[in-house]
Amino acid sequence: MARKKSADLEKTKQTLLEVGLSLFQEKGFNGTGIQEIATLADIPKGSFYNYFSSKEDFGVAVIHYYTETSMEEWTNLLDTATQQEDSYKALGTAFLAITEKHRCAEIKKGCLLGNLAGEISEASEDCRKALQQSVNEYKDILAQRLLIGQQLGKVRSDLPAQCLADLVWDCWQGSLLRMKIEKSVEPVNKAIELLFHYMLLPIK
Amino acid sequence: MARKKSADLEKTKQTLLEVGLSLFQEKGFNGTGIQEIATLADIPKGSFYNYFSSKEDFGVAVIHYYTETSMEEWTNLLDTATQQEDSYKALGTAFLAITEKHRCAEIKKGCLLGNLAGEISEASEDCRKALQQSVNEYKDILAQRLLIGQQLGKVRSDLPAQCLADLVWDCWQGSLLRMKIEKSVEPVNKAIELLFHYMLLPIK
Repeated sequence: MARKKSADLEKTKQTLLEVGLSLFQEKGFNGTGIQEIATLADIPKGSFYNYFSSKEDFGVAVIHYYTETSMEEWTNLLDTATQQEDSYKALGTAFLAITEKHRCAEIKKGCLLGNLAGEISEASEDCRKALQQSVNEYKDILAQRLLIGQQLGKVRSDLPAQCLADLVWDCWQGSLLRMKIEKSVEPVNKAIELLFHYMLLPIK
Repeated sequence: MARKKSADLEKTKQTLLEVGLSLFQEKGFNGTGIQEIATLADIPKGSFYNYFSSKEDFGVAVIHYYTETSMEEWTNLLDTATQQEDSYKALGTAFLAITEKHRCAEIKKGCLLGNLAGEISEASEDCRKALQQSVNEYKDILAQRLLIGQQLGKVRSDLPAQCLADLVWDCWQGSLLRMKIEKSVEPVNKAIELLFHYMLLPIK
C-alpha cells in the first residue's frame, strides 16, 4: 500500500515536471503560475508544495529534468548517427535532427536553458547555478566530439576544442533566439551550415 | 500652461520607459509588475494607463526605447573609434567598449532584445514583431561594417556580409547569456576575440 502511494507520488511529481517544462518553454518562468501548473497536472494548488518547497525549487528541478531528458535525446541521436558516419560528422547530423523537431513544432519554444538564462539568472541564484551546470555538461559533450573531429583532421586545430564548443553553443543559442523572433527555423539551419561547412573546417 | 503640462507628461513617460527598461533587463518582462514600475516612477499605479494602454503596449515602447538609445550609443562608439582606425576595426573596438560596460556593471543585465526574445516571443505577437524589427536594424549596421571590412580585404569574402552579421549577432547573444549564467564577462570577451581574430579573417 505504501509502495503504491510512493509510486503515485512519483508519478505526480513526474507530471508536474513535464507540465512545468512545457509551460516554462512557452511562457517563461514568471509567465507561468503555480495554479496553472497544478491544474494541468490535475492536483489542487496547495498540493504543489508537497512536491516542491517553492517555485524556485521547482525551477531548479525542471532545469535538471530538461537537461536529463534532452541529454538522453542528444546521446541517442549521436549514437544512431555515429553508426552511419564518424563521431564528429554525427554531431552535425544530430543538430539538424533537433532543428527538424523545432521546424515541425507549431510553438517555437527554443532551448529552456537559453530562455531561462536571459530571464532569471539575476533573480534566482539557485536557478542560475543549475543553468551553469547544465550548459557546462552540454559544452563538454560538444568539446569531446569536436576534439575527435580535430584528431580526424576534419575540424580546425588552431583553437582548443573547448573554445570551438563555446562558439557552437553561442551560435546555436543566438540562432534559436532568432528562430523565436522570426517564427522560422531558417536562422538555425543557416547557423548550422555556417558552423559545419565554414567556421569549424580546417584552415587549408 | 498646456505646454508645461505636455512637457510634464512627456517627462513622466520618459521616466516610465527608463524604469521599465532597467527592471525588464534585471527581472524580465513577467517578473516586473506595473505597481513596481509606477512606484519607481513616482506615479499612482492607475496613472500608468494614461501613458500606455497595456503592459504589452509598454513592452513594445520599451523595446523601441532600448533600440533607440543603444543604437545611439553604438553609433557614437563607432564614430569615435572610426576616427582612430578603419571602419571595420572600429566595430571590434565598439564591441569591446560595450563589454567593458557589462564588466563594470554589478548586475549582468545582458541585452534586452535577447532576454525578451527568449521570454515573450510566444506570448506577445506585438513584442515579437518589435524585437524582429530591432534585431534586423542591428544586423544591418553589422553587415554594413563587415562589408567595408570585406572591401578592405580585412574580412573573409567567401560568405555574404549579411551572413557574417548573423554569425556575429548569434555569438554575441549566446555569449551574453553565458555572461549572465557565469556572472562574468569572460565568455563575451572570448567570443569577440574568436570572431575578430579568427572566424571573420580572410582565408589565406
